[in-house]
Amino acid sequence: MGVDVVWFPTYLQSYMRGESEKRGAVTSKEMAGPNKVPFSGVAEDFKGRAACYKQDWNNGFRSGFRILAPTLYIFFASAVPVIAFGEQLSKDTDGALTTVEALASTAICGIIHSIIGGQPLLIVGVAEPTIIMYTYIYNFAKSQPNLGEKMFLPWAGWVCIWTSVMLFLMAMFNAAAILNKFTRFSGELFGMLITILFMQQAIKGMVGEYSVPEGNDESQPTFQFQWLYVNGLLGVIFSMGVLYTSLASMEARSSLYGTGWQRSLIADYGVPLMVILWTALSYSLPSKIPSGVPRRLFTPLPWEPKSLQHWTVAKDLLSVPPTHIFLAIVPAAMVAGLYFFDHSVASQMAQQKEFNLKNPSAYHYDILVLSLTTLICGLLGIPPSNGVLPQSPMHTRSLAVLKRQLIRKRMVRTAQEGMMNNATSSEVYGKMQEIFIKMDNGSNSVSASNELKDLKDAIIPEGDGAGKVPEAFDPEKHVDSYLPVRVNEQRVSNLLQSLLVGGCIGVTPLIRRIPTSVLWGYFAYMSVDSVPGNQFWERIKLMFVTPQRRYKVLEGAHASFVESVPFNIISAFTLFQLIYLLLVFGMTWIPMAGILFPLLFFFLIVIREHLIPKYFDPAHLRELDAAEYEELEGFTPDPSEGGDESVRSRDAQPEYASEILEEFTTHRGELKHRNSSFRDGRLLQLNSVRMTRELSRTMSRAPTLRREH
Amino acid sequence: MGVDVVWFPTYLQSYMRGESEKRGAVTSKEMAGPNKVPFSGVAEDFKGRAACYKQDWNNGFRSGFRILAPTLYIFFASAVPVIAFGEQLSKDTDGALTTVEALASTAICGIIHSIIGGQPLLIVGVAEPTIIMYTYIYNFAKSQPNLGEKMFLPWAGWVCIWTSVMLFLMAMFNAAAILNKFTRFSGELFGMLITILFMQQAIKGMVGEYSVPEGNDESQPTFQFQWLYVNGLLGVIFSMGVLYTSLASMEARSSLYGTGWQRSLIADYGVPLMVILWTALSYSLPSKIPSGVPRRLFTPLPWEPKSLQHWTVAKDLLSVPPTHIFLAIVPAAMVAGLYFFDHSVASQMAQQKEFNLKNPSAYHYDILVLSLTTLICGLLGIPPSNGVLPQSPMHTRSLAVLKRQLIRKRMVRTAQEGMMNNATSSEVYGKMQEIFIKMDNGSNSVSASNELKDLKDAIIPEGDGAGKVPEAFDPEKHVDSYLPVRVNEQRVSNLLQSLLVGGCIGVTPLIRRIPTSVLWGYFAYMSVDSVPGNQFWERIKLMFVTPQRRYKVLEGAHASFVESVPFNIISAFTLFQLIYLLLVFGMTWIPMAGILFPLLFFFLIVIREHLIPKYFDPAHLRELDAAEYEELEGFTPDPSEGGDESVRSRDAQPEYASEILEEFTTHRGELKHRNSSFRDGRLLQLNSVRMTRELSRTMSRAPTLRREH
Repeated sequence: MGVDVVWFPTYLQSYMRGESEKRGAVTSKEMAGPNKVPFSGVAEDFKGRAACYKQDWNNGFRSGFRILAPTLYIFFASAVPVIAFGEQLSKDTDGALTTVEALASTAICGIIHSIIGGQPLLIVGVAEPTIIMYTYIYNFAKSQPNLGEKMFLPWAGWVCIWTSVMLFLMAMFNAAAILNKFTRFSGELFGMLITILFMQQAIKGMVGEYSVPEGNDESQPTFQFQWLYVNGLLGVIFSMGVLYTSLASMEARSSLYGTGWQRSLIADYGVPLMVILWTALSYSLPSKIPSGVPRRLFTPLPWEPKSLQHWTVAKDLLSVPPTHIFLAIVPAAMVAGLYFFDHSVASQMAQQKEFNLKNPSAYHYDILVLSLTTLICGLLGIPPSNGVLPQSPMHTRSLAVLKRQLIRKRMVRTAQEGMMNNATSSEVYGKMQEIFIKMDNGSNSVSASNELKDLKDAIIPEGDGAGKVPEAFDPEKHVDSYLPVRVNEQRVSNLLQSLLVGGCIGVTPLIRRIPTSVLWGYFAYMSVDSVPGNQFWERIKLMFVTPQRRYKVLEGAHASFVESVPFNIISAFTLFQLIYLLLVFGMTWIPMAGILFPLLFFFLIVIREHLIPKYFDPAHLRELDAAEYEELEGFTPDPSEGGDESVRSRDAQPEYASEILEEFTTHRGELKHRNSSFRDGRLLQLNSVRMTRELSRTMSRAPTLRREH
Repeated sequence: MGVDVVWFPTYLQSYMRGESEKRGAVTSKEMAGPNKVPFSGVAEDFKGRAACYKQDWNNGFRSGFRILAPTLYIFFASAVPVIAFGEQLSKDTDGALTTVEALASTAICGIIHSIIGGQPLLIVGVAEPTIIMYTYIYNFAKSQPNLGEKMFLPWAGWVCIWTSVMLFLMAMFNAAAILNKFTRFSGELFGMLITILFMQQAIKGMVGEYSVPEGNDESQPTFQFQWLYVNGLLGVIFSMGVLYTSLASMEARSSLYGTGWQRSLIADYGVPLMVILWTALSYSLPSKIPSGVPRRLFTPLPWEPKSLQHWTVAKDLLSVPPTHIFLAIVPAAMVAGLYFFDHSVASQMAQQKEFNLKNPSAYHYDILVLSLTTLICGLLGIPPSNGVLPQSPMHTRSLAVLKRQLIRKRMVRTAQEGMMNNATSSEVYGKMQEIFIKMDNGSNSVSASNELKDLKDAIIPEGDGAGKVPEAFDPEKHVDSYLPVRVNEQRVSNLLQSLLVGGCIGVTPLIRRIPTSVLWGYFAYMSVDSVPGNQFWERIKLMFVTPQRRYKVLEGAHASFVESVPFNIISAFTLFQLIYLLLVFGMTWIPMAGILFPLLFFFLIVIREHLIPKYFDPAHLRELDAAEYEELEGFTPDPSEGGDESVRSRDAQPEYASEILEEFTTHRGELKHRNSSFRDGRLLQLNSVRMTRELSRTMSRAPTLRREH
């Protein structure tokens, strides 16, 4: 699902030298290589998560009905892509697997993961790599006389079994330690590949609307030329409409107009709303048009005989010829590799340092759980699920907003009470800090004091603790800007959203009303939305800027490499990446051998480690292929650093939190404080400064190149 | 054509107290009211323009082939709207008048105006008000048993005759003096009305594509339901496509990508290119679709019998019953009023102070010429033309760019020669000033010295005239930024573009290939493009910003009234304007009495002068309804005043001039240095500072409210 942002930053190597080992998958012991003791990583993860298991549930229930907001948000963000992917799968497997199966997989794996999984913030679902792999598997099965379409699901089941075995072995031998070799370079290439594949599917779909779908009777009245053409034209209108309105709704939060809740509503739920809107519009056509136009999503109802077949897949497993059972190892290896990275990186994106998560990670253990869910899916004859982007960091972000609202409410009340009772400013601050510590699940007062320093400075004027709180300080408006990021870490939202996805299976008749062109438009939207923040894309665009215009790039927000690395080297690096990308994309077009395309990524990792440093200066490489935090913001003129913060605070609103957080993450979930636009510079600076301060403390211990401007 | 930006600034009243009387239509004598001596204004204008008549032609021919760039630019900007208006006229008059007539009128009136007109920078053509009036005239004629469709053109001829008489009287009695009563308030309301009418036509057109056009045989195969529907769908796709791609191409000049000439090409010729592109696309449809789909522009060929009818209109004039001859006075009065304002304001927009025009204006005389051309058009049975926006200021702007290129070339060469020969810096500067004066048609050395002060400072380091020119000064790159605005005032471009428009009549078979949906898309584009810069629109949008979000408006570029006038007063003013607008718009829907809608504008002028000052504070009114120069830029934080200008100069390019000029005029031609975005703040500041300096000198003498920030 979504785009895989896949660079596991090299920062981990330096990071762990200074910080606790809790967060990373790599410990100092493992620097030399994965730990040789089997299951050591799994055992450690399990111990860590078991300790906070009870809390995971309690936190969730204690939030009450407020937990529904992030739940619904993620539910829509998960369900709509799964429906779209189901349609793609349906077209690619001639209806053997459809939307119902995709929904079932997402629901089942999601429920299992939320209950026994390691990292509850990680969202799982059916993703594009799965669809691609299954397409190859289906085409192969179809071409084999011993298998054919009938044996497709059982053979796919064997692929899943082998995949499960390999994942189990990876979990056993602590393979997650090698993730740090997958740098930004490879990650963005993969991300760009997914972007291209999305757009390819959107175009394929739209063009397909003009012709008779395979396996259909051409003599039906719906398939007369003029209605085919009308279907095609309507397809163009609907898909472009969905694309355009969805992209527009994403910008709603920072719009000038409307009230806060209106903007939040449109920004958060705009995309599924647009899908519903255009579906509704598709029913407003003149009655003279046959009912088959526009073409709508096809999926068998869950209670039809065809769907019930799935329970028999396990029986048919042994009917698969032995040769093919062993042949299934080849695709299984590819799938296992893809899943391994996809799952771990999605998990890592959901746990970025800036989210200030308290509970430990569980990369190894989660691979084990993944191995189990893959096995189950294979036996049920449904496509497996794995960790998805961008839903995972979106989940964490929405829980951060939630937590912030909860903390803020209590602290504001405390402050107001204190001020009304004419308490001294240090008393007021003291009480607020108490509340904060309590709600933060017992963080100690030293760290809380550090994090609340700005708040303290605002409340206690010029260090005079005995004086009154300054009049300019309005708790209702100001507290919000001083709260550090906290995330409501729990399992309830994940479980609930998985149950809701499962509930979608019950409303399949409704889902079948969605025109396929709306889904193609949604693919186009996913493609476009996954691009911002991808530095590969930025570098490609940079190649089209003539030397005389480069000052314009330097004026806007830009990453540091634009200044530190000569342009011809940037171009060479980018060209190499581009050619490699085209190679991989070209390979996906090869009918059967194409399934081996993940091997190219393995080669890429090797190339990055051994070949590229021979041709590029290591200092340049560090800038171009740097870890997230290693990049510093390039010098931009007129920074409004320490600008008129009081103007901002004066008008802060409760929903403001989500706007702040939205502004410094890209749609793919990465923190983008280095890629931000300075148009809303002040807004960003306020929080960016705070974020950067924390980051700086880390960086000061890291032995990387620092640039002073 | 285009949108009428119609406020004749009240600055003229104060302006003329300090400056020469050359520029304005109002002289100090006339302050009390129009001059009572008949034709005094006309005579003065004539004398003034006769003095530079020879120069007007010489300047044009001396520019050589370079004159073709502005010519082609304005030709496309004139021709495409005229073609679109012709189609609207065709639909509204059941084909009595079509595109051929509109083109003929534009060409004939344009040729006459360029040869004997007063202000050669003014572009004339068929505009939306003419179309609206002719629609009323046609419907009236159709409804009268004595007239009917046959007598439509003769009766319209009588309307034109009366209009011509009234305009003649206006010229005689120096009516142009009352233009200053038409403030921004009324002007923007009119502009908004035109915007709405454009959008209305676009929608009417698109909806009309779904049904059989009037007067056609419904049983034709092209009009079967399915092909009607396909036509409608294609219409939606084409018009949205034209709208979207045209708007996108307008942004090309400031884009990061591509070389300078690529961007200029797309920005200048993008819109007609898009029309051609979509027309070409409309031929790429499957052959199974009948040839009538998509519907294309209909206009009779100029050599067909129907067109030749026009020569007989003059004969039929006396066949019109006498009652109706006198009845024609009513619409004629409306038309005369509209034309009077439209023509004069377009002329005024083409002669804004910032363009530094040297030759005198000729408002009164031009009304006389207008009277003549209206008479001729009426006798020929074609719709009359009048001065158009935004083409007129576009014309001046393109000639400013041209002149700048010419001057720059010579000055750069002079500087380079001087520097190669190791001349002292004051010698180099002296030679450059000489060239400048020569090319500026003999402006004196004092004014040239003033205007070239920045250049002098750049060349002569620290006043040390005997030293060398600083090495950092590269003539090729730097001279451009220091040149003041000069316009190539001549008549050749106007004549040539009118001839080209006339030439379009010869290629009518090509024009007939344009799908009507492309034209509806063009209407939508004209509508959207006319809005930015209209403060009425800005104020409407402001009403949707909640109080808490207002800081965001203050952060961006905004006019001064946002700060100085309380929001409830802004809202009240805007609401009044809005209600009045809806009234006028509603009136245009009334079938026959609707022709009297210009009366509402007359009432509006009276209301503005007598009624509104009773309810609104004069200080507020000055801010809300201020003349262009009276407005000062609102305070925006982080002004990069005097910023890193060297960065800009270092990278200035020859085509850069058009980018500079484009950035500080809106699409409607007004100078927008007060509405500019500070995103390209530095760019604007460089020239804005210079412009504002000149303006400040004027303002310091004007007794208006000044605000210091």
